[in-house]
Amino acid sequence: MAGPEQPCFERVAIIGVGLIGASLAQAMREAGLAPRIVGYDADPDTLRRAADLGVIDAACGGLAETVKGADLVVVATPVGATGRLLQEIGEKAEAGALVIDVGSVKGSVVKAAQAAPDRVHIVPCHPVAGTEQSGPEAGFAALFRDRWCILTPLERDADDYRAAVEKAAALWTAIGSQVEVMDAAHHDLALAVTSHLPHLIAFTLVGAADDIETVAEAEVVKYSAGGFRDFTRIAASDPVMWRDVFLNNRDAVLEVLGRFTEELSLLQRAIRWNDGEALAKAFTRGRALRRAIVEAGQEKDVANFGRDQDN
Amino acid sequence: MAGPEQPCFERVAIIGVGLIGASLAQAMREAGLAPRIVGYDADPDTLRRAADLGVIDAACGGLAETVKGADLVVVATPVGATGRLLQEIGEKAEAGALVIDVGSVKGSVVKAAQAAPDRVHIVPCHPVAGTEQSGPEAGFAALFRDRWCILTPLERDADDYRAAVEKAAALWTAIGSQVEVMDAAHHDLALAVTSHLPHLIAFTLVGAADDIETVAEAEVVKYSAGGFRDFTRIAASDPVMWRDVFLNNRDAVLEVLGRFTEELSLLQRAIRWNDGEALAKAFTRGRALRRAIVEAGQEKDVANFGRDQDN
Repeated sequence: MAGPEQPCFERVAIIGVGLIGASLAQAMREAGLAPRIVGYDADPDTLRRAADLGVIDAACGGLAETVKGADLVVVATPVGATGRLLQEIGEKAEAGALVIDVGSVKGSVVKAAQAAPDRVHIVPCHPVAGTEQSGPEAGFAALFRDRWCILTPLERDADDYRAAVEKAAALWTAIGSQVEVMDAAHHDLALAVTSHLPHLIAFTLVGAADDIETVAEAEVVKYSAGGFRDFTRIAASDPVMWRDVFLNNRDAVLEVLGRFTEELSLLQRAIRWNDGEALAKAFTRGRALRRAIVEAGQEKDVANFGRDQDN
Repeated sequence: MAGPEQPCFERVAIIGVGLIGASLAQAMREAGLAPRIVGYDADPDTLRRAADLGVIDAACGGLAETVKGADLVVVATPVGATGRLLQEIGEKAEAGALVIDVGSVKGSVVKAAQAAPDRVHIVPCHPVAGTEQSGPEAGFAALFRDRWCILTPLERDADDYRAAVEKAAALWTAIGSQVEVMDAAHHDLALAVTSHLPHLIAFTLVGAADDIETVAEAEVVKYSAGGFRDFTRIAASDPVMWRDVFLNNRDAVLEVLGRFTEELSLLQRAIRWNDGEALAKAFTRGRALRRAIVEAGQEKDVANFGRDQDN
C-alpha cells in the first residue's frame, strides 16, 4: 500500500492500556493523528497508571462512555476478551466508527467481527511487535516502527468498509509500520511458525529447566550465558496474553508443533547414533536465515544482541 | 577462590585461533599476563588472519613448534579434536607446562586428559561465554568478563598439579571471570540444561520453520519479530563446534531432552483440551527466572535485548 494519505481522527478510544495500547496511543500522538485519546481498562489500577503517565488524556468511566464519540476504537486486550468486546463496541460505539484490534490471532477475531453489529467497521489488525514487558509503563511510541502490521479484513464489498480498511492501513503506515493484507487462516499459520511456537518452546524450556532436580536453579542462573538466557526473554512475556493465543489458535499451533517434534526426533536420533554428518548439516541453516532477518531490517546487525557493547 | 595472585606466563601457545582462542589471547594481552602469544590453527587461512589482525604475535609452523617453550598451552578447538591434541601436546610441550582447554563438554576431555602423558599439567576449563560469531575477527578481550568459568580438574593429588589448577583459576580471574570447580559429570549435566539443550532447540526450530511448505521463508523473515528472531541468534552458531558438543555429551543431552519433551507434551495436551488454567500457570515461571538472571549480572536489564534503544 504505497503512500496513503495521513489519516486523521477526532477522538480515539483505547480499550486495554497495556504495552500495546499504550504504545499505540503514544505513537498516534507523536504522529499527530489524534487530538484526544481516551482509555479504558478492565483493571482500574492499570487505567489509573495510564492516565497518570499521560499515555491517555482521560479515563471516561465504563466502556460505553469511553467509546462514545470516538471515530476510532482500538481493542488492545488479551485476545480471549476480544469477541465479547467487539460485540459490545458494535452496539455502543458511533455508527461508522473504525474499530481495530491488535490481537496475535486473527481467525477467532474475524469470526467474532462478522457476528458483531455491522454499524461499525471492524478491521482486524496484528502489529508484529512487542517486548517481554507489560503494562502502560512499558509502552513507547517507536514500538511499531519498521515492523510489519498484518490486516485480515472481513469479506465485505461495501465502499465504506473498503475505505475503513484503507484508513486502518494508513494509520499503521503513519506510525512507521509496513502493512500486509492476508486472510486470517494464513496469518494464523504464519504466526504460529514465527511467534506462537517460539513462545511455546521458550515457556517449555524454562519449565523443563525448573524441573530437573539434579541441577539447582542457582546453576541455571549462573551458567545461563551458555544460551538459556536468550529463551527467558520471551518466556517472561505476559502469561494471560499467551494463554489466550494458544486457546484461540489451537489447530495451527498443534500443526507446526508436530513439525517441530518431527525435526527434534530426527536430531535426537542423530545424537543417539553419533551421526555427526546429519547434525552438522542440520546446524548450517541458522546463519543464512539470521542474515536474511538482519538484512530485512527485522534484527540489529550486532553480535550477541549487543550485550557486549559497553564492556 | 578469593584473590589469587595474578599469574604470569612467558610464552602462551593458542591452538585454535577462532572466537574463543582469539578472545583469550586479547584478554591475556590486555591484562598483561603474557609478553608473547603464538598461535596455531588447523586452517591456514584462519591462522594467517589471526596473525594479520595482531591477535597472536606469530604463527610458528606446526603444532610441535608452536608449543615449544610455552609455559601455557590453550586448546581452543571444537571439542572433537581435543583428545588427540591433548595426547600430542602431552608428548611435545615442555615438561611442567600448564595445558588448558575451553571446551563446552568436560567428561570426554577429562577422560582424554587422564590418558595423556602426565609430564604436562592438564586442567580442563569451560568459560561459559561466547557469541554466535566465529573466527579471529569476532574475538574481543571483554568476552569473559563477569562470566563464569568452570574448572573440572583431574583427580591428582600431587602438589605441582594442585598448583597448576590454582594457576589456571588465577588466569581466568585475572581476565574478569568468576571461577567454579566441579566434577565433569555434573558440569556436563548442568551445561546440557543451560547451553546444549537451548542450542539443540534453537537449531530444531529454525529447521522446522524451513520445512513448512505453506509458509514462505520470506514470511518467516518478515514476521520474525514475533519471537522467532530470538532463536536465530544461537542457531547461527558454529555447526562443527555444536556437532562435537552433541557427539561428546550424548547421555546428558538425551536425559534433559527427555525432560523437555515431557514438559512439551503436557503443554501440547493443555492446548488440545483448552486447559487455560494449566497454560497460564506454566507460563508464569519465566519472569522470575529472567529477573534472577538479570540480578546475577548474566543479562542486561533492558527490554527486548535493547533492540528498541536507539529508535
